[in-house]
Order: sequence, then structure tokens, then C-alpha cells
Amino acid sequence: MAKYIYDFTEGDKDLKDLLGGKGANLAEMTKLGLPVPPGFTITTEACRAYLTSGSLPADLPEQLHHHLSKLEESTGKKLGDRTDPLLVSARSGAKFSMPGMMDTVLNIGLNDESVQGLAQQSGNDRFAWDTYRRLLQMFGTTVLGVDNGQFDEAHEHLKRDKGTENDLDLDARDLQHLVEVFKTITREHAGREFPQEPQEQLRLAVNAVFDSWNSPRSVLYRRRERIPSDLGTAVNIVAMVFGNLGDDSSTGVAFTRDPSSGAQGIYGDFLPNAQGEDVVAGIRNTLPLTELEHIDKESYAQLLQIMETLERHYRDLCDIEFTIERGKLWMLQTRIGKRTAAAAFTIAEQLLDEGLIDEDEALRRVTGAQLAQLMFPRFDNTAERRLLSSGVNASPGAATGKVVFDTTTAVDLARAGEKVILARRETNPDDLDGMIAAEGILTSRGGKTSHAAVVARGTGKTCVCGAEQLDIDVQQRRITSPEGTVVAEGDVLSIDGSTGQVFMGEVPVVASPVMQYLNGSVQPGADVDPLVRSVDRIISHADARRRLGVRANADTEEDAQRARCFGATGIGLCRTEHMFLGERRSLIERLILANADQERQEALDALLPLQRRDFAGIFTAMDGFPVTIRLLDPPLHEFLPDLTELSVRVAIAEERGKDHEEDRNLLAAVRRLHEQNPMLGLRGARLGIVVPGLFAMQVKAILEAAAQRQRDGGDPHVEIMIPLVGTVQELQLVRDECETVAHKVCESTGVTVKYTIGTMIELPRAALTAAEIAEEADFFSFGTNDLTQTAWGFSRDDVETGFFSKYLEAGVFAVSPFESIDRKGVGRLIQIAAQEGRATKPGIKLGVCGEHGGDPDSVHFFHDTELDYVSCSPFRVPVARLEAGRAAISGSVDATK
Amino acid sequence: MAKYIYDFTEGDKDLKDLLGGKGANLAEMTKLGLPVPPGFTITTEACRAYLTSGSLPADLPEQLHHHLSKLEESTGKKLGDRTDPLLVSARSGAKFSMPGMMDTVLNIGLNDESVQGLAQQSGNDRFAWDTYRRLLQMFGTTVLGVDNGQFDEAHEHLKRDKGTENDLDLDARDLQHLVEVFKTITREHAGREFPQEPQEQLRLAVNAVFDSWNSPRSVLYRRRERIPSDLGTAVNIVAMVFGNLGDDSSTGVAFTRDPSSGAQGIYGDFLPNAQGEDVVAGIRNTLPLTELEHIDKESYAQLLQIMETLERHYRDLCDIEFTIERGKLWMLQTRIGKRTAAAAFTIAEQLLDEGLIDEDEALRRVTGAQLAQLMFPRFDNTAERRLLSSGVNASPGAATGKVVFDTTTAVDLARAGEKVILARRETNPDDLDGMIAAEGILTSRGGKTSHAAVVARGTGKTCVCGAEQLDIDVQQRRITSPEGTVVAEGDVLSIDGSTGQVFMGEVPVVASPVMQYLNGSVQPGADVDPLVRSVDRIISHADARRRLGVRANADTEEDAQRARCFGATGIGLCRTEHMFLGERRSLIERLILANADQERQEALDALLPLQRRDFAGIFTAMDGFPVTIRLLDPPLHEFLPDLTELSVRVAIAEERGKDHEEDRNLLAAVRRLHEQNPMLGLRGARLGIVVPGLFAMQVKAILEAAAQRQRDGGDPHVEIMIPLVGTVQELQLVRDECETVAHKVCESTGVTVKYTIGTMIELPRAALTAAEIAEEADFFSFGTNDLTQTAWGFSRDDVETGFFSKYLEAGVFAVSPFESIDRKGVGRLIQIAAQEGRATKPGIKLGVCGEHGGDPDSVHFFHDTELDYVSCSPFRVPVARLEAGRAAISGSVDATK
Repeated sequence: MAKYIYDFTEGDKDLKDLLGGKGANLAEMTKLGLPVPPGFTITTEACRAYLTSGSLPADLPEQLHHHLSKLEESTGKKLGDRTDPLLVSARSGAKFSMPGMMDTVLNIGLNDESVQGLAQQSGNDRFAWDTYRRLLQMFGTTVLGVDNGQFDEAHEHLKRDKGTENDLDLDARDLQHLVEVFKTITREHAGREFPQEPQEQLRLAVNAVFDSWNSPRSVLYRRRERIPSDLGTAVNIVAMVFGNLGDDSSTGVAFTRDPSSGAQGIYGDFLPNAQGEDVVAGIRNTLPLTELEHIDKESYAQLLQIMETLERHYRDLCDIEFTIERGKLWMLQTRIGKRTAAAAFTIAEQLLDEGLIDEDEALRRVTGAQLAQLMFPRFDNTAERRLLSSGVNASPGAATGKVVFDTTTAVDLARAGEKVILARRETNPDDLDGMIAAEGILTSRGGKTSHAAVVARGTGKTCVCGAEQLDIDVQQRRITSPEGTVVAEGDVLSIDGSTGQVFMGEVPVVASPVMQYLNGSVQPGADVDPLVRSVDRIISHADARRRLGVRANADTEEDAQRARCFGATGIGLCRTEHMFLGERRSLIERLILANADQERQEALDALLPLQRRDFAGIFTAMDGFPVTIRLLDPPLHEFLPDLTELSVRVAIAEERGKDHEEDRNLLAAVRRLHEQNPMLGLRGARLGIVVPGLFAMQVKAILEAAAQRQRDGGDPHVEIMIPLVGTVQELQLVRDECETVAHKVCESTGVTVKYTIGTMIELPRAALTAAEIAEEADFFSFGTNDLTQTAWGFSRDDVETGFFSKYLEAGVFAVSPFESIDRKGVGRLIQIAAQEGRATKPGIKLGVCGEHGGDPDSVHFFHDTELDYVSCSPFRVPVARLEAGRAAISGSVDATK
Repeated sequence: MAKYIYDFTEGDKDLKDLLGGKGANLAEMTKLGLPVPPGFTITTEACRAYLTSGSLPADLPEQLHHHLSKLEESTGKKLGDRTDPLLVSARSGAKFSMPGMMDTVLNIGLNDESVQGLAQQSGNDRFAWDTYRRLLQMFGTTVLGVDNGQFDEAHEHLKRDKGTENDLDLDARDLQHLVEVFKTITREHAGREFPQEPQEQLRLAVNAVFDSWNSPRSVLYRRRERIPSDLGTAVNIVAMVFGNLGDDSSTGVAFTRDPSSGAQGIYGDFLPNAQGEDVVAGIRNTLPLTELEHIDKESYAQLLQIMETLERHYRDLCDIEFTIERGKLWMLQTRIGKRTAAAAFTIAEQLLDEGLIDEDEALRRVTGAQLAQLMFPRFDNTAERRLLSSGVNASPGAATGKVVFDTTTAVDLARAGEKVILARRETNPDDLDGMIAAEGILTSRGGKTSHAAVVARGTGKTCVCGAEQLDIDVQQRRITSPEGTVVAEGDVLSIDGSTGQVFMGEVPVVASPVMQYLNGSVQPGADVDPLVRSVDRIISHADARRRLGVRANADTEEDAQRARCFGATGIGLCRTEHMFLGERRSLIERLILANADQERQEALDALLPLQRRDFAGIFTAMDGFPVTIRLLDPPLHEFLPDLTELSVRVAIAEERGKDHEEDRNLLAAVRRLHEQNPMLGLRGARLGIVVPGLFAMQVKAILEAAAQRQRDGGDPHVEIMIPLVGTVQELQLVRDECETVAHKVCESTGVTVKYTIGTMIELPRAALTAAEIAEEADFFSFGTNDLTQTAWGFSRDDVETGFFSKYLEAGVFAVSPFESIDRKGVGRLIQIAAQEGRATKPGIKLGVCGEHGGDPDSVHFFHDTELDYVSCSPFRVPVARLEAGRAAISGSVDATK
């Protein structure tokens, strides 16, 4: 016979799968000898059986009967008894918390007879009838599916008749009347009588809780939170205790330490003469927990003792719910408490100091997301502020400055020492200089994966995007709010990238001490912020433990220097096309449009010295560490004039009778090269194969820069990366060309430069044929952005304006696959490529570049896939270091346990 | 000790892997007792060892010595002998024919001494010195790497000195002088003496043949032909025989039957007193083989006897090379002969009748590509014609008609009974009606996978595309050739889709009897073309043998009827977006641009009856067979006005001071919906999820049409297909909606319509998560076009204008992956999805739609992957039937063998 019910004396906290979180912790507290009301848990296994078959398991009723009898025995009360009735609650409790999603029924066991017993025992008629009224309403709504409005309306009607608005003005007779009305409502709307038999009440309540696992809102919640749909919920049957039986009763919640700062000492609120629901509903103002000492010294002391016990037992911050019924303290719930990022680090370090946990466990207790939060400056909470609007919290931090609308002004003002906020409808690669010059970026279009958001996170800039209510008029250089507020160029705005809020005027900013430590501008020492000490200790341990290397994506010498400060030990992705924005763009345009060999050669000749200088700077900044340089990979349209703009220009010129032959010729060329889907067009290796001399020029520049660096005593580690390869034949062709050039450079400079040649794995076909591609590659770098685009068949450029928000809403994704790696699809391709690439060439180096390299969940996946390193934007390097450490210890056991 | 050498008496025709094609067949003929000059074959294994280590295997020289001694023994001659020297050739011969790619050296064994012996034995001084001269030139060029121009120049120089242009005017003394000159050239340009030692000549020649396996042209050839690069070549060492020793000598080639028609009877040419090279070089006109009877009756009779032996032995058409040396016939080569499509079918049926092969083998002897060739009409070869230009042979057949430049004119003229050729720069979906109305399509842009080509092949229209030299001016309605020829609208053109040629005026066309049989307009019977009888017999056997079902892609009732005539047993893909071209397009535009629910509902209400009628027609045409209807999947931009055109229109209106508010509003809407990469944008399931009511309307129309059909006594098999699904969650959402609608229709009509719901697998992620998707899908249809686009990361729209031709040239692809399935990448995704989908749901139906469904090689792959059916355009149905049969027997054994 399967065991479907566990008494609280039988379970423990490690049985969450079977008993749910609430049940497991109630059992644990019972085991610890804490005052938990007696009760038992019907398992998730019973729920699963019920959901599969549609009825309760055959063995369950007997077991339920048995446990109820034991409960009656231990409480000395009887369910439905007319003199001293036992009341119980049926509370849902799944493995993973699903707050507010599932049902709970209180006060089960009351009926027309036992209500008398409750009145008698409590000496409080009103309390008894009010409790019965509550059961009727809760049961009718939750179990019998009656619209809650029906009950509320009858309740309101009665109060109107009595000429009051306050529940408390209804006396016992009024409530007794209301009970009759509620019964009538139940009969009419549920088509059946309210069940007077307590056993039936209980059975139906259990079914209802089980059913609530599959309510539409639960299903949607689980889909969004990626909680498996087949776990089921447990049901806890607990003897009722009441905090509303007079001044010697109360109810409250508490934390074993401050969840905001992590500071030691208890922290909580309570309400005298109240029920748990009243605390949540905020009917009256709660009192700080310390007040309890004055009211009930004994219970207060007991509570403190219990909280210490719990914290030492769980070795973590706990939160609890308690009720005092006529001077007797009862524990109704406990769990590991949520906390702020700062508290997480502080508590972890304190517990470590106290010897409660070891270093690995301390590392386990913090997350990369928390570290990221601590890296950003914040607005001073105490300062006054005037909200203008809000948008998407795209890149955290707090920024304040004069509004500008274009890159040139942003750069000019920043050079003149002004702080600026760059406001654009949306941004594109041309805005890069302006974004870097600005303190923060504000856009009215796009979401968390828009260009503005990605670049902002990459460069550590604060960004609010998609502030749709704001009309950002770049031509007129002003922002207009729906209320008609106008912000002109030069006016000061403040934007909060952590909340998405936009404020008028300057809001004072508080710098992040954690950031100052992480970027190397402050050394950890005795006089630093204690939080910095915690972070330093934990991240150092992460570094000691991690197997994954952490590199940075950096395209300039400055980026490379910054990345090194943040702890990057190499560059995993240097995007050479980013070296051709702004003024240099025209050189690429010339190259692509060149009709004759000579024209093309001139363009290449002009590019060579610029590239050489670029690479020399980066090698200097990353001396001694590997630098992966990706050969040119621009979607063609990014380097050609916009077809529509140019067409309009030519049409208008013709309309005006002017001859713009040059524009007409340019238009013909742009039309010839125009692509319907540039993301799937002439890019990467394709461009290198089609445009003679392009890759050769880049390789020459790389090798010459490295040769010079070696001659100057430096130690460049050159890795040349071929982008967008779909088949080994492409790589062969390009590799041959690269090696020929490299050989010539070594001969002409007389310096033997060591280099490796590898490729991006960023197309599904590349991943699927990695065994072949590995023959020609010294390393693979997974380009997870493109791999996500092609595996899913949607482009990052277009999802923002299209269906993505709808998909997130409908739960198709819990999180954008551009933010966090899609393990089943994109992840599987990476696994295939890693495994089969290594089978061909056991020593092949495997890394990942792209946004996912700095995403915590993705870092764990890359660790599990046994890659050699991740590469992410410089500002995500500390996050990646921390998460790589956490991934490395995920299987290890806490030595202090 | 490894055996590196096989005497011709040791091998046989089944040892092609080891002996190469030529060696294996020489051994086979020797085994048959045919007069093959004695010799032996050095194996491909020796070649592989040589190529890996860089030197000949240690055991080889001894084996070579041994076999040479035996050869000397059997011929009674000695290599290098000054009285009766043995001469040998070293001929390359790999497993797969690589014509002209690899090296051969003739006349090995001549030196300053043995040349005397040759002169003595042949009684012909001139012959001896000419032969020595030839060796020096061939050896110098092939083995020692001397530029052939050096030898030619010296030869020309000597002729100029002698005042002649004819080789034959050089006498023995002249040639003896030339030998000395050639030796000097060798010494100067090769840096060594020509080796006098025959053994050294032989050893160096063998190395050279081996080396030629890796010559750049061989490597490129193999890359293009997808021949594995590690096979290596064999070298055949054969005693020389000479067809140029006088009037009793000759050389020729022959076929055992007519390779053009398949007719029985020998077929060949020969040249008296000549060498093999002379036949190829075309120095003199060859004589028909029958003439040989008059010259050398005995040899002629012997040759006929041998040819009969060979055909019966190989059970197929053979081609041979022979030489008669002073009245003695020698066989130098044989192999299975190439033939035309008609000959292939005719010969297969004849051999079947003769009992030489069984029905499976007959089926094996023909290909789908050959059948496709027989389906198209041809120009009468005997008619006069005037070539205008040529382009890509995109869709075979011969078409003649008046040139028109737009769809409306094409349709109007066709209705009036005129034959027309539609000429466009390139085509797009709007041209569909015109393409169908036309006899043929001519474009000046795009290749074999351009829109014009794909549609033409799909609809069986003749098409020449990418005729780049022609200026097709649609505005001026004329075509101009580079020579200035102008073709105006209404002028007659003839286009040959099999050759890509474009002719002025009308060229008479011969209809295809095979086509008339296959489309059901002629029944096979006693009075039909014998070729039709052959085709009927073989394709009937294919139908009996094949396991794969063959369906058609059809979007209209007419297409469905046609497909059924061609033998399709269902529709695998009905593209509903194709029902919205032309006039109906505006309805879709309205739907997509609708801002309010009511506007959208009105658009849907207008569409419903149209769709219902569409489906009713298709169900009628395909009664009793499954019809897979794909819900709407248009790239958004195909149904919205072009952004550039609209921008120009608005700009010009503004310039003219006119207010085009409607256009301005439209432009704003188009801008909002504009996608950078529409192929990766709001399409398929995404559109259905984002546009409320769209899929519901389509499902309603489908089910209502089916219900009506059932009521009318029909038997519709409805399969609803959800496009572009990347994750099971999308399919869940859409499936729920479809089922709700279907349920309502069944209720409201009172008819229980059976239907299944499945999905396209056309994104890599869908293939990789097929195990999950199968839970919600009754069938999978592999959308290989999109799967190819996303797996490779290039769009079919863009490859034509971009890098594809360069890639084909460089051997990156042997064939476009849009034409024939890429097994390693796209194919692997299909295998994963088929296997894992079936693991979830063993009975899930698996099919493929898209261009690949009618491609022979791909059909074999789909058979091997154990799909249930392929679906292709109606005109490819017979090809798919044939190839599906061939795939089914590919492992079986010929019972007559």
C-alpha cells in the first residue's frame, strides 16, 4: 500500500518533492520540537495520481481517516463535535513556491452543530459565527465554484441594512443570519447544499486544492517560471489556531535577520488580536516585533529562541509566520527568506565567519544577478524626485545629465565635461560614440534585447528603453510627455535603469563601492565598505574554484584595458567591423562597391595601416593573454547607404530636374547589392571569399602588429577567427589564404609570429558538421547570438518590433532566448559541436562569445558542456567569474554540513 | 607482405576499389579470354600509402620487378632491349572516372639504345624516332614538370626550318635531331638528364601518376563531384601496341548498341594507321566501324564477337577502345557506356526482354533525371534557327510564342488563344498568373533557384533565366541584345529550357509522347511509341516496389487534378498564402494593417467564403486522398506595399505640395511593420498567434468545406498543418485554438469531420526538439526549403544575387543545397527529428514537402530516413515515383545475375 500521508512527525525538510515546501518545513519544525499545530501532509504523489486518474487513490480515504483520528486524539477535539470541535485548514504547498496561485481552505469542520461548540469553547458567539461565515464563503468560492461577488454583495447588503460600513458592527445574530444567506447562495449557484458533513468538507477541499494545480493561472505561472507541470502539489491538513481570540492573541511574520541589509538581529511585524489574513490585507497598522516583548514577554522570548534555533538549523536567513492563541505561541510556517543583493553577500560572509557554512556554500548563496545589481550606482532614495515617465529597465544604474539627441552633440558636450543623456527613438551602430560619451541612454522604442539595451549592458551604461509614452523628436530636439511636459535639448533628466523610471531634473546619485573595487579603482582593505569585503572574499573563492576561463568581448584598446581590470584573461571576440563605424565607414563602402581591382586595392591599402594600429593597441592592452580577432562580419546593409533614403533622394532630385548622376549610379549599385534578408546574406566568410584581398589585408595587419609587438618585447597571443562558416570547405579556402599571408609577413618582418586559426560556430550546420570543421580549426567560438537567430529562425533586429512581447506574455518563452541560452535547441547544437569537434581534435579550444557569455544560467550550461572559456562584455566579466565558480561547485558537498 | 600489384590475370571487375575502373575491366576482359595486351595494375592502396608517407611502399619495388619480369617473359621482349624492346604505358585509373584529370605516360622503355631495336623490329625508323620524341615530351612534361610549350616551340621551330607545317614532312633524321633538342630542353628546364634507365623511367612515371591525384585540378574536380579525396588512383602498366604501323593497323572506339536511341547493333568509328590520340584529336575524319569489314574482315568479325560477349557479360551497353596492330586485334579498354535518356529506358526494357536482367535491375538502369528529360517537348533538331542569346537552363522543354512583359497581357493573349513567352527582369509571386498563362518564361536575372526557375519547374513551364546579356526593358516593352537586335512586344521568340538557348522567331516543337502518357492523356497500348511502353513498364515496377508515398504540392483545384493524373496520392502541401495573390492580396493587407478589432473581423469575414470555396475544390479533386493544408505563412513584406516605393511616392507628393494623407498613414503603418529580415520575422505560427482570428477563420473554412463535402457523399481527408513552429508551446497554443474551432463547426454543421493536426519541421530548433513537438502533432512535414535556409544561414531570395555562383565555382558546394538535400547538415536534422519524433509517438506520419521532394538524390535520402511520403510539384511526381522505387530496391540483388 502506497503511503500517501505523512504526519508532521514523520517528514523532514529534505522531502520537498513529496511534501512540498510548506509541508516539509512544518515537519522539520515539528522534528525540532518547535510548537507547530498538529497536522499531516497529503503527498504530491497522491495529487499526481488524482490528476492522472481523475479520482483520489483508492488507499487514500482509509489513510486520511486514520490520520484524522490521530489528530483528534492528539488535540482532544473531534471534527464536527458539538461541544469542542476540531477545525482544520487544507493548505496547498508545492515543491516550488507559486505564491497566490493555488487554493487553501480554512476552518474546515464547522457546521450547524459544531458552530455551537466553537462558540461555547471560545466563549465568543460572534467569533464562532464569523468563522462559520468565512468557511461558507471560502468553501463556496474555492471548492464549489460560486462567484465570490455573490457573497460579497450579500455581505455588503447586510451592512447597508444595518447602516454601517464596518464588519465589526455586525453582531453574532447578524452573522448567524448571514450564514443562512450564504447557504442559500451556495444552494442556488452551486446547485447543491453546503456539505454539513466535515469529512465531506475535507475531501472536497483536498480535491479542490489538487485541482487548483491545473487552474489556468497556475499553468501560465508555471509556463513562465519554467516549473514542470507534472509535479503536483501537496495538501497540508493543520489544526486551526486563532490569533483573533482577544488581546492575549496575535499573529505575525518575522525574519531571523534584516533581509534588506543582512544585519543580524530579528526583524518582523505583528498584529494583536488578528488573523494572518489581516496582516497581509493591511487592515490595521502592524507593530514592530520588539513591541511584543511588552505585551507577552514569555512568547517573545520563546519566539527569539525559536528563530535562533531555526537560523542555526537551516544555516540561513529564515522567514516565519506565527500565531499566538491566548498566550500560546504556534509556528505556522518557515522557509529560507528572500533578501536583497547586498544582504545576500553580507549574510553569506557572516555565516561563513560563524562557521555555519563553508566557502563553497557561501559562494552558492549569492548569484551573478545579485553581483550585477551591486555594480551599478543608484539614486539617493531620500532625495526628492519628479517622475516624467517610465519604460523598460534595460541596463541598470542611475544616470543624470543634459538631454541630447545626437552623437555629435553628445560627444562635444561630454568632451566639454558635461554629463549627458542620449535620447533617441531607437539607436543603431552609428550612435555608438554618442552612447559611450553619455551617462545613460533613453529610447522610446525597443525592449531588453534592442540595440540600445544590448550596447548599454555591454558598455555598462544605464539605459531605459521603450519609454513608449514619450515622444522623442530628434528633428525638433525635444521630448514631449502625454501630459504635455516638454523637455528641450540641454534640460536635465535622470534615468533609473534598474526600475525604468525617468525623472525630471537632477536626482543625486550614490556611487557603487562594489564597482569601484571590481574595476580596480579601490583595493579591498580594512577601510573599505564591509560589503566590498564580502564580495572580495566570495569572488576570490569563485576564481579559485572555477574551471571556465573568462574573457571579454572588446573591440578597442580602451575596452581591452577595462576588461583586464575586471579580471578578464583574454579577449574572446574582437569584432573588426566595429572598427569601421563613423568616419571609417566610407572606406568599407568604397571597398564593397568597388568595380575594378584597382579601386578595391586602393580601399584596402587605405585600411591596412588603420587596422594595424587598432590591433597593436589591443595586443598591448592584453599582453600575455589570448586575443581572438574575428575577420570582418558586417551584414552588408550596415555598410551601404539605405536603399529607401537614397531612392527618395534620387526621386526628389529628378522631380526638381536636377541631375544627380553620382547618386543615380550609387542607387543602381545599392539596388544590385540589396538583400531581402541581410542577416542571411553576404556576410562573414562569404564576404571574405567574394571580395578578393579583404581577409588578406586584415590578416596582414594582425600579423604585422603582432610582429612589431614581439620585436618591442611584448607577448601577443594571436587567434584569428573566421566568421559565419557553414561547411569545412569555406574554412579551408579562407584558412589557406590566411596562412599564405601569415607566412609572407613572417618572412618580410623576420619575426616568427605564433598564431592559431579558428572559426565561429554560429550556424546550425556548422554545429552539425563540427567533426569535419574541426579538421581545419584550432578553436571554436560559439556565436550564440547568430546560432539563436538561425536555430529559431527569427532575427534579433525584428523580434523587438514583432511578436516577442506577445510570446513572453503567452508563456511561449519564460525568458528571451537572446538573453539566456535555450538549452534544448541552441544548447543541444553546442553540445553536439563540442563533443564531435573534440572527437576529431581532442585538444581543440572551445569558447563562447556573445551576450550569453555573461548570463548566469548560460554560464552554468557552458561549464556543464565543458567549454574552456566564456567571453562577455567587460562589465559582465565579474558576473561570469562568480557564476563560473558557482557552476564548478554545483555538485560538491558543504563540508560544514 | 601486402600485395600491391595485380596481374591482369588476377583481378576482376568487382575490384574497382583496389584496381580502379580501368584496371578492373582490363582484368575482367583478360579473364574472359579477350585479347588484352598483357600488363598489371599497381593498386590504389599503394597510391594511398605513397600519398601518406611521401614514398613508395618498401615492398613495391620488388613486386614491380617480379611483375615486369613476367611481362617480359610473356611478351618475349625486354625493357630497354636494343633489339626487341618492350614498351609500356603507365595509365592512371581511379575508382570513379575523372576524365582528363590525371596523368598517363606512354612509350616507357625507349632510350638511346632501345630506339634502335624498335626501328629494327618495326622496320620503320621514322616511327621509332617519333615514338622516342613523344616519350621525351610526355615524360618531360608530366614527370619532370617541364613546360610543354618548350617542346612545342622546338617542334614548330624545326618545321619552320624545314619549311613545312605538317608533322609528316619530318623524316627520321629530323626526328632524331628533335630527340636531341628535347633532351637539351629537359636538361635545362628540369635540371636533370632524361633518365635512360627504363626502370627509372617507370618508377618516376608511377610516382607522377600517383602525384597527379592531388593536382589542383583533380582536387577541384573531386570537390565539385563530391568524390572522396582519400581514394587514390591505381596505375596500369600495359604493354604498348601500335595502330599506326601501316595500313594493316588501326585504332577505334565502339559501343555495343546505339547510345543515342538504344537501338541494337554495333556503333563506332575507327581510323586506319593511327594512334588512339589521333581519334580524339580529330586529325583525320574517322570511318564508320562497318567499313572495317572491308579492310580487315577477320578482325571485324572478331570485334563483333567480342562486343557481343561483353554486352552479355556486363549485361549492359559497353563502350570499348581497340587497336589493330598489323592485323592483330587488341582490346585497350571497356566500360559501361553513357547513353541518352531515351536509350536508357529502351536498353533496360530490351535487356529485360532478353532475360539478361530482372525488373529491379531494369529499374536500377534508369534515373529520375532521365525520365524528367523525356517529359519535355523539344525543338525539332532539323529546323533552322537563329540564336539571340543564352542563359541558364532553368526548367527544361521547348517553348515558342509572342513575347509579353506583364501578367495582364500574358493572361489576355493566352485567353485569346495566343502562345506567349513572359519576359521579365526577374519574377515575383505576383507574376504567377502570367507564368501559368505563358508557354515559357525568360528572365535576365537569377539562376536555377530563382523564383522564376522554381515556379517554372513546379508548374512544368519551360524557363531560361539569367540571360544576362539581354536588356529586358519592361517599361519600354522590348528586349535588346548586345548586338543591338531589338525584340518588341508581340515578336515571336523560342526558348530552349534544356540548353538555355533563346532563338529569334518560331522553331518547330516536337511534343513528348512520354509526357502524354504520364499525364494520362494517352494510354499505353500497342500503338504507342515504343519508348512509352518502356517507361510504362519500368515506372509500374517502381510503383510496385516503392515504400514511399508520393504526394504533390498543389494550391488550387486545377493543380490537384493535374497532380492526380501524374499519380499523386494526396496533397502534401497546400500553401494557403498562394490563394491570396492578385486581387485578393488587398484583403490580407487590410487584415495585417487593421488597428481595430472590427476592421480585422471585417477582413476575416470577407476571406472566409473565398477560402471555403478554395478548399471545397481541392477536396473534390483529391477525394479519398489526404490533403495537407498549411495555415497562412507569408513573409510579411510580401503582403505589404514596398517601403521604398511608397516612400518615394509620399516624398514626391510632398514635393508637389499635394496632401496624400492616406499614403502618409499607410507609410507610417508599413514602417512600423517593416522588418530587416522578413524571412526571420512575423510569419507562420507567429502571425497566427499575433493576429487574432486569422487561423480560426482558416480552420473554419477548411472544416466547413469538408463537412459540406461529406454531406455530398465525398471523402475528404483533412490534415491541418501549422507552419514555422520552433517550440512545442507554440503548437499547443495554435492546436488548442484549431480544436475549439473544429469542435464548433462539427456542432453547427452536425457533421463529424475527421481531421489531424500536424506541423512543419522547418526550423533547426523544431527538429532538435521534435520529441516534445511530437506530443502535440499528428504528423510532421519537413519544410526543407526553410530548413536549408536556417541551417546554412542564407536566404533563397539572396543567394542568387550574392555569393552562390562563386561558391559553386570554388567547389564549396557541388550542387546547391536548395536543389538537392544537404545530407550532413539539413539531412541530419531530419534524421534527428524523424527518430526522436517517432520515439515519442511511434505512429506519427512523416513526410517532406518543398523542392527536395522531387529531387532524385533527396528522394533516396528520404527513403533511407524511413519517411512515409514525399510531396513535390505535380510535374515532378513521376520522377519521385520512379526514384522512390529505385530507392526501395537499392539493396536488393538481381535475380538473373
